[in-house]
Amino acid sequence: MRNKSLLLNIVLLAVIVVLGIQLGKSTSQNSDPNGMQGPNRFTKAHGVKTNPTLTTIFNRKSVRHYTTEEVSNEQLILLAKAGMAAPTAVDKRPWAFVSVTDRKVLDRLAEVLPYARMLKKASAAIVVCGDLNKALEGSAQILWVQDCSAASENVLLAAESIGLGAVWTGVYPDDDKVAAVREILGIPDRIVPLNVIAIGYPTGEEKPKDKWDASNLHWEKW
Amino acid sequence: MRNKSLLLNIVLLAVIVVLGIQLGKSTSQNSDPNGMQGPNRFTKAHGVKTNPTLTTIFNRKSVRHYTTEEVSNEQLILLAKAGMAAPTAVDKRPWAFVSVTDRKVLDRLAEVLPYARMLKKASAAIVVCGDLNKALEGSAQILWVQDCSAASENVLLAAESIGLGAVWTGVYPDDDKVAAVREILGIPDRIVPLNVIAIGYPTGEEKPKDKWDASNLHWEKW
Repeated sequence: MRNKSLLLNIVLLAVIVVLGIQLGKSTSQNSDPNGMQGPNRFTKAHGVKTNPTLTTIFNRKSVRHYTTEEVSNEQLILLAKAGMAAPTAVDKRPWAFVSVTDRKVLDRLAEVLPYARMLKKASAAIVVCGDLNKALEGSAQILWVQDCSAASENVLLAAESIGLGAVWTGVYPDDDKVAAVREILGIPDRIVPLNVIAIGYPTGEEKPKDKWDASNLHWEKW
Repeated sequence: MRNKSLLLNIVLLAVIVVLGIQLGKSTSQNSDPNGMQGPNRFTKAHGVKTNPTLTTIFNRKSVRHYTTEEVSNEQLILLAKAGMAAPTAVDKRPWAFVSVTDRKVLDRLAEVLPYARMLKKASAAIVVCGDLNKALEGSAQILWVQDCSAASENVLLAAESIGLGAVWTGVYPDDDKVAAVREILGIPDRIVPLNVIAIGYPTGEEKPKDKWDASNLHWEKW
């Protein structure tokens, strides 16, 4: 009996040590010594303060090589939702999104857009459009371009954040490209395709670039 | 001796139970049943799949009310870095950023920009500019607007992610506003201020809007 009890003590102690180590590891992953609380708490990566959003911003790259894995409608909805979370001038939200997964349509777009050949291999695309029916009037109408560009960046970042790769290929203001995309997708006159964002699972070939250049940042005045 | 050993067994068992519960809690916070690994792993929030980047995208709001707390140069550099991580047409990076924290300059900008009155209370601003010396030539030159708009969205998201509040106030293509900002900041002719992004610590008055509208998302064609 005494030996059994001793043996049990030793076993229980060993279990405590293992659990303690696991708990230590687990809580240190969650710790937040210097930065924010919550999902975007700061961590140190390569000696630089960062958080998951900044990581996504700095890891985003133009991805032109994809695996054959399909992109789901749920994912495309999420990307469009992210686009619609962008700010717009006077909150006009002058946008529309066309989600494309049809192989034939993607191939046709690749054929008419010289800089969008990667659509031949992409599982999906989102076409970000300006809706002039919703845009401001007069000289401020053109602000839809800024609004839809901000929305496009949200789509790219959301894609990066869920493990997809994407690349923005330009359409507007090239009249020929605008006409070609309109024809293929049946887009009416008052809707202007700004770009075609090709989307797929990255093969991993593309790496992010460090584009920081301190000479582009001026302090207090030019 | 036998009683001591038994008592120790009971104590050790109790410690194991407590550690086990803590470890269970801790690992469930880190679990990733469906989504990605790493900092942007999916979690369920309000029944919706999300991750920290998506949380930032959906939580970003136009913040026009700020506390008096100062925004540091380190933070402004981080925001400009985020801006410079955006994609640009043909990788031209046709941008420049002017960071402003001088109270007098912020006040002067507030006086000339009717929709930027909040600069009177903002601790800082970043002016995102197009640099026509770096932009594409001919009809593609105007793509700097799209590039700098994507960069601006990165600045807004980076601000949200580090606990700052920001709002994009328009400058280009309003000739009067462009001229006024140029004059105050000493910006040369070939540099075009696109916007002034007011930045500060939010008072918490502004809440994000849910701008999702399924009718704005078309499937396969218009």
